[in-house]
Amino acid sequence: PMDDAARERARSTFDSNELAAFLHDGEDKLQRREELVKLLSSQPWGDKTHRYFLTREQEYVGGLKAMVGMWQQMRQGRLSLEDGIAMRSLAYFPGGLELHIGMFIPTLLSQGTPEQQAKWLPMSNRLQIIGTYAQTELGHGTFVRGLQTVAVYDEASREFVVHTPSLEAHKWWPGGLGKTATHVILMARLFAQGRDYGPHAFVVQIRDMATHLPLPGITVGDIGPKMGFNSVDNGYLAFDHVRIPRDAMLMRFSQVTEEGRYVPPPPDNQKASYATMVYVRATIVRDSGDFLSRAVTIATRYTAVRRQTASKLGEPELQARQLPPLLLPACWPVLDYDNVQQTLLPLLARAYSLVFMGRSMMDMYNSFDAARSRGDFGVLPELHALSSGLKALCTDITAAGIEACRRQCGGHGYMLASGLPTLFNSYVQNCTWEGDNSVMYLQAARYLVKNVLAAQAGKPITGSAKYLSSAAQQADAKCGVSTADDWRSPAHQLAALTRVAAQLAAQATQVLARAGGGRVAFDGEPWNNSTVDLIRAARAHVALYLHQNFVDCVEAAASQRALGAAASGVLRELMQLHGVVLLLEASSDLLEGGYCSGRQAGMLREQQRALVRSLRPNAISLADSFAYPDYQLNSALGRKDGNVYQALLDSARISPLNATHEGPAWKEVLEPLLSPAVRSRL
Amino acid sequence: PMDDAARERARSTFDSNELAAFLHDGEDKLQRREELVKLLSSQPWGDKTHRYFLTREQEYVGGLKAMVGMWQQMRQGRLSLEDGIAMRSLAYFPGGLELHIGMFIPTLLSQGTPEQQAKWLPMSNRLQIIGTYAQTELGHGTFVRGLQTVAVYDEASREFVVHTPSLEAHKWWPGGLGKTATHVILMARLFAQGRDYGPHAFVVQIRDMATHLPLPGITVGDIGPKMGFNSVDNGYLAFDHVRIPRDAMLMRFSQVTEEGRYVPPPPDNQKASYATMVYVRATIVRDSGDFLSRAVTIATRYTAVRRQTASKLGEPELQARQLPPLLLPACWPVLDYDNVQQTLLPLLARAYSLVFMGRSMMDMYNSFDAARSRGDFGVLPELHALSSGLKALCTDITAAGIEACRRQCGGHGYMLASGLPTLFNSYVQNCTWEGDNSVMYLQAARYLVKNVLAAQAGKPITGSAKYLSSAAQQADAKCGVSTADDWRSPAHQLAALTRVAAQLAAQATQVLARAGGGRVAFDGEPWNNSTVDLIRAARAHVALYLHQNFVDCVEAAASQRALGAAASGVLRELMQLHGVVLLLEASSDLLEGGYCSGRQAGMLREQQRALVRSLRPNAISLADSFAYPDYQLNSALGRKDGNVYQALLDSARISPLNATHEGPAWKEVLEPLLSPAVRSRL
Ligand SMILES: Cc1cc2nc3c(=O)[nH]c(=O)nc-3n(C[C@H](O)[C@H](O)[C@H](O)COP(=O)(O)OP(=O)(O)OC[C@H]3O[C@@H](n4cnc5c(N)ncnc54)[C@H](O)[C@@H]3O)c2cc1C
Ligand SMILES: Cc1cc2nc3c(=O)[nH]c(=O)nc-3n(C[C@H](O)[C@H](O)[C@H](O)COP(=O)(O)OP(=O)(O)OC[C@H]3O[C@@H](n4cnc5c(N)ncnc54)[C@H](O)[C@@H]3O)c2cc1C
Repeated sequence: PMDDAARERARSTFDSNELAAFLHDGEDKLQRREELVKLLSSQPWGDKTHRYFLTREQEYVGGLKAMVGMWQQMRQGRLSLEDGIAMRSLAYFPGGLELHIGMFIPTLLSQGTPEQQAKWLPMSNRLQIIGTYAQTELGHGTFVRGLQTVAVYDEASREFVVHTPSLEAHKWWPGGLGKTATHVILMARLFAQGRDYGPHAFVVQIRDMATHLPLPGITVGDIGPKMGFNSVDNGYLAFDHVRIPRDAMLMRFSQVTEEGRYVPPPPDNQKASYATMVYVRATIVRDSGDFLSRAVTIATRYTAVRRQTASKLGEPELQARQLPPLLLPACWPVLDYDNVQQTLLPLLARAYSLVFMGRSMMDMYNSFDAARSRGDFGVLPELHALSSGLKALCTDITAAGIEACRRQCGGHGYMLASGLPTLFNSYVQNCTWEGDNSVMYLQAARYLVKNVLAAQAGKPITGSAKYLSSAAQQADAKCGVSTADDWRSPAHQLAALTRVAAQLAAQATQVLARAGGGRVAFDGEPWNNSTVDLIRAARAHVALYLHQNFVDCVEAAASQRALGAAASGVLRELMQLHGVVLLLEASSDLLEGGYCSGRQAGMLREQQRALVRSLRPNAISLADSFAYPDYQLNSALGRKDGNVYQALLDSARISPLNATHEGPAWKEVLEPLLSPAVRSRL
Repeated sequence: PMDDAARERARSTFDSNELAAFLHDGEDKLQRREELVKLLSSQPWGDKTHRYFLTREQEYVGGLKAMVGMWQQMRQGRLSLEDGIAMRSLAYFPGGLELHIGMFIPTLLSQGTPEQQAKWLPMSNRLQIIGTYAQTELGHGTFVRGLQTVAVYDEASREFVVHTPSLEAHKWWPGGLGKTATHVILMARLFAQGRDYGPHAFVVQIRDMATHLPLPGITVGDIGPKMGFNSVDNGYLAFDHVRIPRDAMLMRFSQVTEEGRYVPPPPDNQKASYATMVYVRATIVRDSGDFLSRAVTIATRYTAVRRQTASKLGEPELQARQLPPLLLPACWPVLDYDNVQQTLLPLLARAYSLVFMGRSMMDMYNSFDAARSRGDFGVLPELHALSSGLKALCTDITAAGIEACRRQCGGHGYMLASGLPTLFNSYVQNCTWEGDNSVMYLQAARYLVKNVLAAQAGKPITGSAKYLSSAAQQADAKCGVSTADDWRSPAHQLAALTRVAAQLAAQATQVLARAGGGRVAFDGEPWNNSTVDLIRAARAHVALYLHQNFVDCVEAAASQRALGAAASGVLRELMQLHGVVLLLEASSDLLEGGYCSGRQAGMLREQQRALVRSLRPNAISLADSFAYPDYQLNSALGRKDGNVYQALLDSARISPLNATHEGPAWKEVLEPLLSPAVRSRL
């Protein structure tokens, strides 16, 4: 297989180092990553050799050690934040500090008063307290307004009484809550002077600092094993009339005075909390490309060296015995089978698209952030809708893509050592947390339908839904493609995707209006009865946006001459393939709406085949350009050198089940059955 | 939630006990299952309380204990084979004996001589030896002819010398090989008198019976952890010139004489081995319905009681303090959201379809088996193609369906306690083992293309591809649907599915012929370059078959009055929904080929919505009719009584990570950071 890997690389028509440097903002960044890999793999907590063999307890301890280890490296080595982020991705060992870093500290920063920040932040940054974010309850997730945990202000003592009134009200899910956190940001329903003000945030200490035991009135524990992410101790939490001081409430926006008077937040508060959501969703969009490209790298490298026979046996004894050469048929790498390459090349295109989308999404967030600091929240509604819709689409694509990659690897893809099962099982939660994907599409749909109505009312439309303003004309436009090659043109591709998006948006609005007896309502029964159409429309809208972004990025790279002609040409072909893949998914809509003829739709398949064939020689170099170090992938099948079988065998040999030859069932179960001596004694 | 579950059941329009009895061949069978559940759950090895908390080693030992336990119960209690099969499904704890039962014994039966059977079978049946089936190698799976392990006949000693000539030739995957098996059926390339006769089967002892240690020259171990199925010790195995007696070769069909002369098998040998494959694939088809129906039961029950708010808080203290009632909006079970019900009801329909398909498939196999014992192999080619194609389609549907069910459960579906992650992770291997699904579709495609050519040559076509004989006329037939309700008619549905199947079969044959420069070849480059089209055609062919079978089963039940009018009507609606779901998947083909207009295709969606709405009140009863005992599902979310939150909490409380309050990282990792006392000492 090692020869095969080299041979594959030799076929490439462009320099993968060049594309890698482009994707990673320069060679120095790639070099820095190599240094960090050395640093990590030299640490006991950074060693990945046994990663796939850990028990739940070992995973939990290991994840914590890795995070604490990195944190100490950063302090001692005075590493940059960028280094820290890179290390976290390289080590990929999420632990009980995820929410401390990702939610506890950020919420203090955004919602705490200066005094609260002065009190909590220094300890948080030194890991002298560890926090998490406790919102979801056993019975209440998506529907945040339904939370039941209460914080009732007691004017007499000037304290809040925090309480869990029912089974359903148990907090459930917060990461790091199970065994790690000492504090939580608690979302609880605020009652003051007898009135219910809905969910508010409080800082609550839950464990004793000297013993780590739960404080009186507090029940806390780990929620148990999950499909993946088991190094994180997601937890449950209940309060039995626990008293916390008044200043435990995060009071930057809303307040409760000593007398118990409620001071409502200024209008910007809600905008600020939307902004936080946008930020988190943007990071999920960014990570989607990261995860899909890992899976595609593994599958592409493996299928490029996986042959169903070796060319010859090369066994000396057999040769000495003068056996005739084995008549083994010449054998392909499985990546040469039509079915494998037509699965993997499109996924390569998608991975590139998601990587570009992730960067644009973060750019958009950052420019919003700059505007916001000037008090300008103008793009927020658009950004909120886009980030929700893209969160759903990108995580859907990545989750399905990882599993498709795994399947292409045949039996060996089922081994943890391949890296793919863990990637899938730890990734799929992204389709659910921070807003279930159906609910996310519906957020985007709400925005879309509003724009449809505005367009119908003749109002000007800006931003991502701009195409709706010309929707009336589009309805009887026809596809102008006359040869399969025409489908390569971004103009034809975008026109067709736009048409589908406009058509489905109009359709969904119609369905919604019909369900509401002519009136368009954004909630209640009519809305809930129309969600399938609304979700389809939102998907088409963000799919168009996703492709437009790929086209824009490729064109920008070309016009800035950021890449040589060879690499730039390959990237363009990938972008063309991406468009064709999206259009094939939409082909029944294109046909149903009468935009395409059957022949034109058939040409999409023809063009997909042509593009896949043309890209095939560059498959491995396109994977190489993602530039994942072997350390990061931790995959026997995804090794750059192609030495896959040795890696599988090496990994099996150190599996704990092989600690003894007889195995753990011998004495108790097998010996009484199998051993003649023991059997005769029974 | 318990009230919700009861309320849901009250809405049902038919008696789920009646349908359950129909599906399980009578009430007595259901009762018997209840008794077996009691028996199993009273055994230490049958207790499932801690099933989701086991380490790999505990899983391995537990799986073996459960299998040995059931085997001993069967002997002591003189239980029937049917009881045994039922217990295995109820306990669902696959172990190191899977291959002993599923492949080692059956292969001895089918390929051993009477003397070989007399030697090995009694010990096998008493579990005094444990065997497995070792075919796949690290480098050779799908392509069996490429196997490299050799068995070279040595005339001098009248023995075979078994040897592993390379890294790639290590046996890899056989279940139970890692730590359990004492013997293997080894597939090795037979060399006699200097000639290579390709893969043949040998019985080889690999471990010492008294010590369980590997015999000299043998390297054996567990291959390491997998995505699922970790209670099974799949293993690797290598031989260093190991000598085995001549009669270790299974000689029922081919033989090697003492002098080393090779006696080739009679032609029926290949047929027999095809028959074995058909049998194994038929059981995979049967099990697909079993697994999908488990997942759908869990998701339907949970989404029927999952609300985003409780109706009231019911907390005494709050009431005492005279708080105004919480203004919580009335709240739906999530199964009432369009997106959830339009996902789950179609999956219910698919689960029923697969259950019916599984029964028909086993019936077909059994009648073939009867014919075969009369020497009649006539239906074998058709059965081989069908069982291959259905193996692929049914496992694809089930794997995707389980994950879809899991997603509908929101965050809690990610908990192992929900049962769904384990179901998915242990199920997906069915898409790969016993023939990767792409390869399986291609087996069906081979048969299909042959029939297309025969039809084009004017030869009569029988069996499942019969519709190809009238394909010429069909090419310009048009869909006769004029209202959405027309799509309910099996005649319209089957006509459309037939049209798609014929169209894609013709298309694939054309692509193949074009790739072969006008000549249709069934292998080599032209074939391998056409596999995407071939797979699509095969899928459409078996999808048609699957739906035809559902229609036939429902009509047979109706004409035999096997069910009352209410249940029978609901079943008919499910069947109608199943057809619509398949047609929606095929809608771009229907449109592209010009069979349907855009309006007609749009009516499919309308009809799906109508059928889903109509079936909605019966959702939970349709799930109940699968009649899974809680013990079998082992799911906090799938409990029949709806008490889901209590079950989640109970399960978390006994999670091993909760063994101590401080957790396993306190002393080593957290205390030095967090405890002021310890910190001050550092
Ligand atoms: C790994 C993981 C980590 C997590 N970490 C945290 C954490 O640290 N802190 C924290 O507070 N929470 C955390 N959560 C909880 C997470 O935020 C929720 O699980 C998530 O928001 C989904 O909500 P739910 O579970 O209530 O899903 P549900 O709302 O119960 O979803 C069930 C089904 O109903 C559908 N549905 C629900 N509402 C609607 C609607 N309005 N319209 C249409 N369909 C609808 C969904 O699409 C889904 O199919 C975590 C969850 C996971 C899985
Ligand atoms: C859980 C599990 C248990 C198993 N148990 C056993 C056991 O007990 N005994 C045993 O001997 N084996 C066992 N196996 C091995 C199993 O039979 C093989 O993994 C399976 O047959 C697939 O072969 P492969 O792994 O070589 O896949 P590959 O052939 O390597 O497949 C890789 C990719 O190539 C494609 N491909 C390969 N050939 C073709 C072709 N001709 N045309 C088109 N596409 C092609 C496939 O579709 C796939 O996408 C087990 C495997 C698993 C996962």
